[in-house]
Amino acid sequence: MDLFEKLLSDKGALGQYSYLDQDVNYYFFPKLEGEIQPRMKFKGKEVLAWSLNNYLGLANHPEVRKADTEATEKWGLGYPMGARMMTGNSDYHDQLEQELADHVSKPTGMLLNYGYQGIMSVIDALVDRKDVVVYDAECHACIIDALRMHIGKRYVFPHNDIESCETQLKRATKLANEQGGGVLLITEGVFGMSGNTGKLDEIVKLKENYEFKLLVDDAHGFGTMGETGAGTGEHLGCQDGIDIYFSTFAKSMASIGAFIAGPTDIINHLRYKVRSQIYAKSLPMPLVVGGLKRLEMLRTMPELREKLWTIVNAIQNGFKERGFNIGSTNSPVTPVVLKGDVMEGCNMVVDLRENYHIFCSMVVYPVVPKGTVILRIIPTAMHTMDDVKQTLDAFDEIKEKLDSGVYKEAGVEGALVAKS
Amino acid sequence: MDLFEKLLSDKGALGQYSYLDQDVNYYFFPKLEGEIQPRMKFKGKEVLAWSLNNYLGLANHPEVRKADTEATEKWGLGYPMGARMMTGNSDYHDQLEQELADHVSKPTGMLLNYGYQGIMSVIDALVDRKDVVVYDAECHACIIDALRMHIGKRYVFPHNDIESCETQLKRATKLANEQGGGVLLITEGVFGMSGNTGKLDEIVKLKENYEFKLLVDDAHGFGTMGETGAGTGEHLGCQDGIDIYFSTFAKSMASIGAFIAGPTDIINHLRYKVRSQIYAKSLPMPLVVGGLKRLEMLRTMPELREKLWTIVNAIQNGFKERGFNIGSTNSPVTPVVLKGDVMEGCNMVVDLRENYHIFCSMVVYPVVPKGTVILRIIPTAMHTMDDVKQTLDAFDEIKEKLDSGVYKEAGVEGALVAKS
Repeated sequence: MDLFEKLLSDKGALGQYSYLDQDVNYYFFPKLEGEIQPRMKFKGKEVLAWSLNNYLGLANHPEVRKADTEATEKWGLGYPMGARMMTGNSDYHDQLEQELADHVSKPTGMLLNYGYQGIMSVIDALVDRKDVVVYDAECHACIIDALRMHIGKRYVFPHNDIESCETQLKRATKLANEQGGGVLLITEGVFGMSGNTGKLDEIVKLKENYEFKLLVDDAHGFGTMGETGAGTGEHLGCQDGIDIYFSTFAKSMASIGAFIAGPTDIINHLRYKVRSQIYAKSLPMPLVVGGLKRLEMLRTMPELREKLWTIVNAIQNGFKERGFNIGSTNSPVTPVVLKGDVMEGCNMVVDLRENYHIFCSMVVYPVVPKGTVILRIIPTAMHTMDDVKQTLDAFDEIKEKLDSGVYKEAGVEGALVAKS
Repeated sequence: MDLFEKLLSDKGALGQYSYLDQDVNYYFFPKLEGEIQPRMKFKGKEVLAWSLNNYLGLANHPEVRKADTEATEKWGLGYPMGARMMTGNSDYHDQLEQELADHVSKPTGMLLNYGYQGIMSVIDALVDRKDVVVYDAECHACIIDALRMHIGKRYVFPHNDIESCETQLKRATKLANEQGGGVLLITEGVFGMSGNTGKLDEIVKLKENYEFKLLVDDAHGFGTMGETGAGTGEHLGCQDGIDIYFSTFAKSMASIGAFIAGPTDIINHLRYKVRSQIYAKSLPMPLVVGGLKRLEMLRTMPELREKLWTIVNAIQNGFKERGFNIGSTNSPVTPVVLKGDVMEGCNMVVDLRENYHIFCSMVVYPVVPKGTVILRIIPTAMHTMDDVKQTLDAFDEIKEKLDSGVYKEAGVEGALVAKS
């Protein structure tokens, strides 16, 4: 049959809602305009944005902007050309990866040209068919895609369920021993949807009884967690037990690219094996030089992290005091869990944006169970206590409307408001 | 067993030669310094570089450099934050993807935040377990990685062997029909190692007898092939037969990022399904705005492409006249195929760099058969006829030394010269 006809017949989990958008970029592909800060423009009106992972406020910090511009002026965005291994290397690439490693207390680091493909290929390079992977069920899509390439066994444990994790480790160890393979355990520092920290300390303790290596994706933890911002391992006092530490630059670092850090012999070995790095262009120089500046600020300006946490604590405590369910987050990620169907959620988002001028992301079925809507709030160091109060007050009102059936009544018609 | 010990026990195809490098970045991870042009610095000395895919010379063109700097000054490298679908969209993203689509004569385009993960996820989104993929054996690593995620069947045909391609299409169609799936054929416009163009015209003709969709990776063809630089399909007069056109920005566009272009309904459908785009940050604005400038130049300055082909023809004809084997290339990629083992190749590279001041990449076993060494030359619009002559003369001399056994004699000791 025709491949394209078949393809179009299944719109998929997200595409099923695309009809609501009527090409106006409202629910999907919205355009937030203006400089990256809490007050931005959406469809010509100012909104208070809570949906950018600019945790430390670096994206638009004058020093970062200056460093980015100067580096681009000096090097251009095309330099260097080629994969790192071939013709895409520089002293700055070496320097940034070493400074990143130093910051997370690992001997050696390796830059990755992009987080998604970077971790996919790192995992791919670490394991072969004899090796067994044990992983948390809520790991990010890039980890799941990596495991889809893995032809050996993989055992999943329910999110943060350490008892089940141990059971799977037991099975994995047995199988790996039979096959002459090893065990790789993959989890995250901070889970991006729930805001839960991975139970890294408890997992590290399992090393006393099981032989495995631990890879942690700390995308949301790097820069936000731990006294020095070295991440969730530092926060939980178990950084030494993380064998391969990974973070993207897409969150606190407000850039693109990523890195891993770990034992020197392993990292140097991986340089020759990580396919997306061997066969694709290395990170452009302005992103590397700009990365050095961002890392310096992340390290030397603890006030940014303190400010972030002031906002995080204020908004999370505020939500709790006002009776909202924010799940079990213990990181800046703040999911406000509400009861409602997708259309109620859409009407709530429209109301929030049009009448309260608040912009945040919504997560609906099938990402969360039917009947649940999550409004996800990402606090940053740029937000103010006034922003927090405005938002809590607005949420009080929309919650009341939600409970009283206002959004239910508005139905699909209301959700389509964006059309007009 | 210990995963890391096991890992270190197999250095792999490339890592097996890492001992030659002694941490001096000679064969692997070399640092080409200075601005991107034919004359750059390697280890403090000027070399004539033939190893950068800067085909049109855009990487360092003053207009590109200006556009990059201005865009970075205006937006910073952090803007926009978030995935395209969530908070990473802008009018410029829309504009660039549409202009790219227009240029390759397709209705609609879609930007990808990086080529490697972009095409992986596009292929992943196009097919499910019922669909069958037919592909050329020499497809790039990113396509192979995509197919490693595919849980349906895949049939490979020997590079550019159309008879075998048809046989595989026949099998694929039969199986797909039985399963209620479709057939996707994947090949490349220009193969990056051999320089062969894919036989796109012959493959398109097979559509008369078989029902399949054609995806073409035209990384090396975009900007270099066809009268307007619209790529290998334009060059071979069969652009209409390409259903999904893909190119990275890492070659002629001298940047990072990528795009696909094809039918509007399919592209718009893919926007909701391509995992690496839904779950990872979108292309930073300066790369988008810089991309608009590059595309404008690629379109409006045919003299760049003419200059490229002047150099390509001069060096390829020169090699042929002097009796060199450059395989069957019919694109700018110029592989000089020599007989020798890896150590001879290394000694040749050392001689070329140290005594002839010529820098090019070498491909050895196991990428090519044992006893074969390929020196790969990438001509660009920035090279001169003097550069061509210098290089041809140098190759005459190193070929003579190779044939007379000079490099064989030098052995591992000679290859380790980089140490001192």
